[in-house]
Amino acid sequence: MSSEKYTVGVDFGTLSGRALVVRVRDGAELAAAEHLYEHAVLTETLPGRADRLPPQWALQVPRDYVDVLRTAVPRAVAEAGIDPVDVIGIGTDFTACTMVPVRADGTPLCELAEFADRPHAYAKLWRHHSPQSQADRINAVAAQRNESWLPRYGGLISSEWEFAKALEILDEDPAVYAAMDHFVEAADWIVWQLCGTYVRNACTAGYKGIRQDGHYPSREFLAAVRPEFADFVTDKLEHRIGRLGEPAGTLTAQAAQWTRLPAGIPVAVGNVDAHVTVAAADALEPGALVAIMGTSTCHVMNSDVLREVPGMCGVVLDGISSGSWGYEAGQSGVGDIFGWFVDNCVPESHQAEARRRGLSLHQYLSELAGRQGVGEHGLIALDWHSGNRSVLVDHELSGVMVGQTLATTCVDMYRALLEATAFGTRMIVETFVRSGVPVTELVVAGGLLKNSLLMQIYADAVGLPLSVVPSPQAPALGSAIHAAAAAGAFADVPAAAHQMGTRIRNAYTPIPANVAAYEQLYREYVAAYEWFGRGNGMMRRLRRIGTPQPVGALS
Amino acid sequence: MSSEKYTVGVDFGTLSGRALVVRVRDGAELAAAEHLYEHAVLTETLPGRADRLPPQWALQVPRDYVDVLRTAVPRAVAEAGIDPVDVIGIGTDFTACTMVPVRADGTPLCELAEFADRPHAYAKLWRHHSPQSQADRINAVAAQRNESWLPRYGGLISSEWEFAKALEILDEDPAVYAAMDHFVEAADWIVWQLCGTYVRNACTAGYKGIRQDGHYPSREFLAAVRPEFADFVTDKLEHRIGRLGEPAGTLTAQAAQWTRLPAGIPVAVGNVDAHVTVAAADALEPGALVAIMGTSTCHVMNSDVLREVPGMCGVVLDGISSGSWGYEAGQSGVGDIFGWFVDNCVPESHQAEARRRGLSLHQYLSELAGRQGVGEHGLIALDWHSGNRSVLVDHELSGVMVGQTLATTCVDMYRALLEATAFGTRMIVETFVRSGVPVTELVVAGGLLKNSLLMQIYADAVGLPLSVVPSPQAPALGSAIHAAAAAGAFADVPAAAHQMGTRIRNAYTPIPANVAAYEQLYREYVAAYEWFGRGNGMMRRLRRIGTPQPVGALS
Repeated sequence: MSSEKYTVGVDFGTLSGRALVVRVRDGAELAAAEHLYEHAVLTETLPGRADRLPPQWALQVPRDYVDVLRTAVPRAVAEAGIDPVDVIGIGTDFTACTMVPVRADGTPLCELAEFADRPHAYAKLWRHHSPQSQADRINAVAAQRNESWLPRYGGLISSEWEFAKALEILDEDPAVYAAMDHFVEAADWIVWQLCGTYVRNACTAGYKGIRQDGHYPSREFLAAVRPEFADFVTDKLEHRIGRLGEPAGTLTAQAAQWTRLPAGIPVAVGNVDAHVTVAAADALEPGALVAIMGTSTCHVMNSDVLREVPGMCGVVLDGISSGSWGYEAGQSGVGDIFGWFVDNCVPESHQAEARRRGLSLHQYLSELAGRQGVGEHGLIALDWHSGNRSVLVDHELSGVMVGQTLATTCVDMYRALLEATAFGTRMIVETFVRSGVPVTELVVAGGLLKNSLLMQIYADAVGLPLSVVPSPQAPALGSAIHAAAAAGAFADVPAAAHQMGTRIRNAYTPIPANVAAYEQLYREYVAAYEWFGRGNGMMRRLRRIGTPQPVGALS
Repeated sequence: MSSEKYTVGVDFGTLSGRALVVRVRDGAELAAAEHLYEHAVLTETLPGRADRLPPQWALQVPRDYVDVLRTAVPRAVAEAGIDPVDVIGIGTDFTACTMVPVRADGTPLCELAEFADRPHAYAKLWRHHSPQSQADRINAVAAQRNESWLPRYGGLISSEWEFAKALEILDEDPAVYAAMDHFVEAADWIVWQLCGTYVRNACTAGYKGIRQDGHYPSREFLAAVRPEFADFVTDKLEHRIGRLGEPAGTLTAQAAQWTRLPAGIPVAVGNVDAHVTVAAADALEPGALVAIMGTSTCHVMNSDVLREVPGMCGVVLDGISSGSWGYEAGQSGVGDIFGWFVDNCVPESHQAEARRRGLSLHQYLSELAGRQGVGEHGLIALDWHSGNRSVLVDHELSGVMVGQTLATTCVDMYRALLEATAFGTRMIVETFVRSGVPVTELVVAGGLLKNSLLMQIYADAVGLPLSVVPSPQAPALGSAIHAAAAAGAFADVPAAAHQMGTRIRNAYTPIPANVAAYEQLYREYVAAYEWFGRGNGMMRRLRRIGTPQPVGALS
C-alpha cells in the first residue's frame, strides 16, 4: 500500500472491453488491457444453433461482458505494477443503447435453459436495427399526440433505442416479453454485476429511455402505440435513477474475486462511451463540442440552456454531467466511409507505392491530398454512405460525388470525402448555433485524430479552434474519472475531470485563407445537402428500384 | 488486270491514317494498313522549338497526312494481293473540324520558312479548344442579331469550328491571317493533294462552316463580330462546293507516284469520319441513328424533315448524303470515361483477378456487372466527365455519382457509368423525337460495340432495337463506298452503300423487364440531369473555387 491512489475505468465497446488503470493524483494512465468478446456480434445465428437470424439483427452474449471484468481488469492492474489495495474505485462505460432482458435478480433470459434458443432473450446491441417498423409506429403516435418530449429528440425516436427494442420483443416473442422483469441497459447491467444493485444511470434513461423532466412517456401514450404495451414503463423500465459520478454501490465479494480488486470499493453509476469522454477531455463547460471520431462520429456537449435543436439525437438534463443540459448529435458514417474508399476505390499503382513506402493507404493518400490547395480538386461529396443521423435523421440517404472529370484522381476523391465529413460536422455546429445553443470550440477524441490533414480540414471547414484529447483510451479514462468522483477523491466529476482529464487546446487553428475557400465549397455542399436531403426522394427511390438478384460471384 | 474492281478508302484519324482496300462487288475488306503521324498531336511545342504552346492547343503537321498516302495506301494494296490497275477510285474521310491555313496553291503556311515558327501557321486539330472566347463572341453577336442559321446548330457555334479558329488567327497573329489565301478543312486539303483541285465538301461546309441554304454568314454579321473579319468568307472560305460521293477530280501523276495507284482514277469529294460511317452501315434511310462509339460518341442520322432540335451539333442539307437533312449530335465522353474509371477507381484485388484470368479490366468488370439485375446497385451517374455536348452544350459540366453506400463496389460504379452513357444517348433520341424528327433504330459502330453488356444496356435503356456495324474499319469502308460512287460503279452513294455496306439488324433487342426497370432509373437520371445541367451553376463554380497550386508529385 502506497500513498498513491488509483481508479480503474472499463470501456465496453462493440467487439471488446478495455480496462485502464489511472493515477488519481494526475490522471496518468499506467496500463491498459483488452479482452475480445468470445461471441463478438451475433448477426447470423445464435451460438450452437443453425437457424438464421433475420437481416439487421445484432445480438450479444452478456457473459462476454463479465469475462472482461475477469481478464482485462486483473491484467491491467498487474501490468500497472501497483498494489490492488491502492485502487479506490471502479467505473464503466458502455455502447448505447444496448439492452439486456433479465429476471428480477439480473439473470439474462438467454442464460435460462428455456430461453437459450430464443433470439429475443439475448442482449440487443446498439446497432440491432430491425425494429424500424416499431420506431415508425412510436414516432407516428408521438407526433399525432404532440408528445412534449418529442422535440427533445429532434422529432424522431430511433430504432436503436429502448422503446423500439422492447416493442419488437412484445410484437415478435410475447413469452420473452412476459418473462422479462427488467429491460436493462447493458451500461447498468454491468454495474449491477459489480455491486449487486440495479441503478439506472441518468444518461441512458434520458437519451435512450425518453426520460424527461422526471417522467417517462405516459401510460396513455404507450396504450395508443399498442394496448399490451401500456404498462411497459412501470413493469419493466422504471427504476431508481443514479446520477453520473455517484456510487451505485460497492464491489461485491463475487466481483472482487473476478477483478481481484478490493471488495467494498465504490462502483460508479453506469455511463456511455461518448459521454464519459467529455470528462476525459476536461471539457464539461458549455460550448465545447466533443466529437468522438471513429467509424462514426458522436458529438456531445454541455450547455446552460435548453433549446429545441432540429435533428439532434437528444438533449437531457444531467445527461453528461449533473446540472447541465447535455446535447448529443451524430454522423452515422465517417471513418467507415474513408475505409470503404481505400478498400474499393484506390488503384493498384497507389496501393503498390504506399506499400513500397511502408505507409497505410490512409497515410499515403492523406500525404498527397495535403499538397492540394482548398477546392483545387473541384469536387463536392455528401457523406451519407451510412445515411445521415444529424440533422436529417434519414438512414435511407446515400453518398454522392459531384465534379469528376477525366483528370480526377483517387487522391482528389479521398480529400473530397474527408471534407464532406467536416462539412457534416459544420452543419451540426450551425444547427446548434442557429437554435440558440452556442458552440465555441471543437474537441476531438478517437482514432481519427491521428490524421493531421483531417484535423486541419475540420478546423478550416468548421472555422473553430480545434482541441484534441491526447489519451488513446479516452473513454476508459473518463470512466476512471467518474470512479474517482464516486470514490470521493474529488468533490464532483468536473473537479475530477479538471485534475485527471485534459485536452490540448488550439492543437489546430483555422487558417484564414482556407476558411475563406471552404466558405465557398460549403455553400455548394449545403446546396447539394438540401436538394438530395430535403428536396426530393431520389435516394430513397434508388434503393428500391432494383430487385436484388442474389448472385454467387460478388457476395 | 482482273474482272474484279476495287476502291481504296483512307480514314484520317487523330493519331494515324488507315487505308483499306475494298472489293466493289460486295464490300469485302481485303487488307488494311495504318500509318502513325510522325508528329502526332502538337500540344507542348512546335517541332524543333522550345517555346511552350498555350493550354488547350492542339496542332498537326500537314505533311504527316501525305505520308499516309505514301506508306499506308501502297502497303494495303500490296497486302491485298491485288493488281493496282484494278483500283477504280479513292476516297477519304477526316477528323473535323481540322483546319489548314494555306497559300493559293495549297501550300500550308507552316511549310514556308517565314512562318515555320508561328503556331497559327500549323493545322489546328478538331480538339484545339483555345478559341473559346472567339466562339463566345460569335455566339453573342449571332444571338443578338437573331441570325437565322443559329438554331440549325442547336443555338451554339463551337470553339472547334471554322469561324472560331479563323478569328483566333486574326486576333492573335494578323500576319498569318493576312498571308493565308484559303482556310481549308483538312478533309479537303488531302483531296487537293490527291487530285490537284480544291473542292469544298458539302458536309464540313455545312456543319463546320455554317453554310446554310447556299449561304455563309453575312458580311454584316462578320463585321459586327470584328470589322477586320468582315471579308473572311469571301477572302478565305468561299469556294466551289462538291457533293458527297462525286469526284473532286482525278489522281495526279504526283499522287499516283505516292500511292502507286493508277493516275487519272476518280478521287471522291472529302468527307468526315462519322458521316461516311452511315454509308458503311448502309443506314442512309431516315430514322436510323448511327452512333460511332469510341472515346466519345458522334450521332449522325438522315431525315426527310428539317426541324430545329435543341442542343444538336447541326443539321445540314446534303450533309450526310445528297437530298436529305443530315443531323449530327454527340456525347463528349463515353469510352474515355470508362477508361478513366478503370485507370483510377479499381482496387488492386480486381486488377489482380482480371490479370489472373487473362482479361482486360473492361472485360472483367463487364462480366461481373452483367450478373446484376437492372437498378440493383442503387446508383445513378451523370456522364459529363468531359462536359456535355448534346443536348446541354456545356463543356464546364462534370461527372456525378449518386447513391453510394458502404456496400457499393467498383463493379456497381462501372455499371452505373455504362448506363449513364446509355441514358445520355436516350436523352438525345428523345430530344430528336420531341422535336419532330423520328428515330426508329439505333445503329452502333466503333470500338465499344465489342462490349455486349454495354450494347444490351443501350438497347434496354434507350428502348430501341440495336444494329451493329460489323466492319472494324467502318470509316475507311465508308470512304471506299464513296470512292465507288465517285468512280461511277453505282448510280449514287445509297446504291453503293446498299451493295458494299452493311449492318447486323436487331443484334440486340430490348428486354421488356429491363426496359421497365430502366424507365424508373431514367427518370432519376433526368431529375439529376435537369438539376445539375440547368437548375444551378454548381459544377461551373466548383471548377473555379480552387486556385490550382502546381505541385510536383501529382502531375
